[in-house]
Amino acid sequence: MSKRLGSQTIVFQNSPKIIGNYTIVGQKEGNSNFKNYFDYILKNDLFGEKTYESAERKMLEHAILNAIDRAGLKTQDMDLLICGDLLNQIISSSFAAREFDVTYLGLYGACSTMAESLAVGSSFIDGGYFSKIACATCSHFSSAERQYRFPLELGNQRPPVSQWTVTGAGCTILSDSGSDKEIVNATFGKVTDFGITDVNNMGAAMAPAAMSTLIKHFEDTKTSPDDYDLILTGDLGKLGSEILMDLMENKGYKLKDNYNDCGQMIFNCNQKTYQGGSGCGCSAVILNSYVMQKMDEGVYKKVLFAATGALLSTLSSQQGNTIPGICHAVEIRRK
Amino acid sequence: MSKRLGSQTIVFQNSPKIIGNYTIVGQKEGNSNFKNYFDYILKNDLFGEKTYESAERKMLEHAILNAIDRAGLKTQDMDLLICGDLLNQIISSSFAAREFDVTYLGLYGACSTMAESLAVGSSFIDGGYFSKIACATCSHFSSAERQYRFPLELGNQRPPVSQWTVTGAGCTILSDSGSDKEIVNATFGKVTDFGITDVNNMGAAMAPAAMSTLIKHFEDTKTSPDDYDLILTGDLGKLGSEILMDLMENKGYKLKDNYNDCGQMIFNCNQKTYQGGSGCGCSAVILNSYVMQKMDEGVYKKVLFAATGALLSTLSSQQGNTIPGICHAVEIRRK
Repeated sequence: MSKRLGSQTIVFQNSPKIIGNYTIVGQKEGNSNFKNYFDYILKNDLFGEKTYESAERKMLEHAILNAIDRAGLKTQDMDLLICGDLLNQIISSSFAAREFDVTYLGLYGACSTMAESLAVGSSFIDGGYFSKIACATCSHFSSAERQYRFPLELGNQRPPVSQWTVTGAGCTILSDSGSDKEIVNATFGKVTDFGITDVNNMGAAMAPAAMSTLIKHFEDTKTSPDDYDLILTGDLGKLGSEILMDLMENKGYKLKDNYNDCGQMIFNCNQKTYQGGSGCGCSAVILNSYVMQKMDEGVYKKVLFAATGALLSTLSSQQGNTIPGICHAVEIRRK
Repeated sequence: MSKRLGSQTIVFQNSPKIIGNYTIVGQKEGNSNFKNYFDYILKNDLFGEKTYESAERKMLEHAILNAIDRAGLKTQDMDLLICGDLLNQIISSSFAAREFDVTYLGLYGACSTMAESLAVGSSFIDGGYFSKIACATCSHFSSAERQYRFPLELGNQRPPVSQWTVTGAGCTILSDSGSDKEIVNATFGKVTDFGITDVNNMGAAMAPAAMSTLIKHFEDTKTSPDDYDLILTGDLGKLGSEILMDLMENKGYKLKDNYNDCGQMIFNCNQKTYQGGSGCGCSAVILNSYVMQKMDEGVYKKVLFAATGALLSTLSSQQGNTIPGICHAVEIRRK
């Protein structure tokens, strides 16, 4: 049987098992709809550190360490750590990796990182190269704001199309055996750009990439949206999700009640985040808490997790470029 | 036979073949020792663009397009493009990927990117997931200087331990068949930090990572430095290479005439680059020009390519952090 399905999807014959998950979030996220699903809620956003960047890194380390523990493993059992994040030169990931004596692979896929790391990690396990891999990512509202937008001290107003970067980190432990939750295939995305230039409207910039990858996934696997218990994009937010549903409908795919978006889901409407959550941490904490627990409870048996990323930098926008997007997807099943 | 050798090395049973290479460099590099090996030498560093960042991106696109052509393929034959670079949010890679209708995977490994992309790409081909993959990276002196150090207009003096970021892009086309040059194994690195804080002394920061990966490679594959025709690190520069040789000797490994470093090699001593070249493009252009041509000529049959990266950001240094390093290695053989 071929390991390739169609043009962008690869199928795993020795499907990697998900044997551990952990999430840590900030206070605002800890007051959200999902507060009972997260493993650890920070008392303050600095997490005992002097800078937001150090706090972000510490969250990531905490998530990795505890996910490994949840899997019943020790750091020395791990073969590989796959991480990425939003900060310049992915310093959260590289500095967190420094704390572990584990082989490290750094990725950059902006907010698509959770799916990207799971897709790459699954290939390494299915291919027989490694047997225990930690896939993790994180984001922090305060470090992201000052890197991508303005220092918080400036008290800038946020436009109504904006999303709120989630303070949080999530980690998934993949293994060659030991669980009934498994990743059965992965669809890698193409860079897609419909010409959006508004850096406050990430959902609109990423929706076309989500459409591209979802449709390719359905075509490659010969499935339709109805075949899944949950189709989860992240992090398009409310507006981005609506745009995606419109785009998909124009292409003949109707996304119904089994569709949701991590950015749209995470915050309550009274939390004033406008379009919802964003950041690498957004889809990472929803997947590794709520989705995994609902799969364990048997509510979801077949989940398509399609994380989306906006591939801009402050400089690319300052130089007048549009915002390219990407979306990578993995299909997770419970036997 | 296991696909895993020791703790950090994976071995390929269907060794990916190298079927195409291309290099493009700036003027200074075009006046270096290797001028006769590069495929295209820019007439000026802007390459007809308005900004250095656009020029960097255009070099990368040019390298990818021409490497595909050299391999006798067309863009639509490619299954995957794996790229990374030094600019914030790897915009050179993502924006270049936007120009191709090819599935894209973004990596970040700083100047280790050429080896990291070859290691990941080789796993995907050996694993049977994809059959044609382009691995590419780039750097540009002027975009790197203004992002990491100072605007060129400031005319800052460079300290004697500094290296010169190479303006250049290189691309390797991997395939499941079609060449006698193949990647037989890959050693993924661990993040290593010996406490260097001088951002001008990258060679010293990265040498411990190179030592860690090289020794692990020799242990895992049960080889010694004498078993290779060429052991090539990149981009430690002159000082970093000397530090590596000292570190290795302390561990009982003597690196001799078959050892060299891309950063040390690339510029002539009268080009005033002090310790030599650096940047993702440095090892990419040496590997994809000189090394590949010498392998074709039969001069080298067994090459260990170990690219090194410094995983800092301007912010991590401003906040007083030390500089973590990483090194990924691939072993290339000609039958």
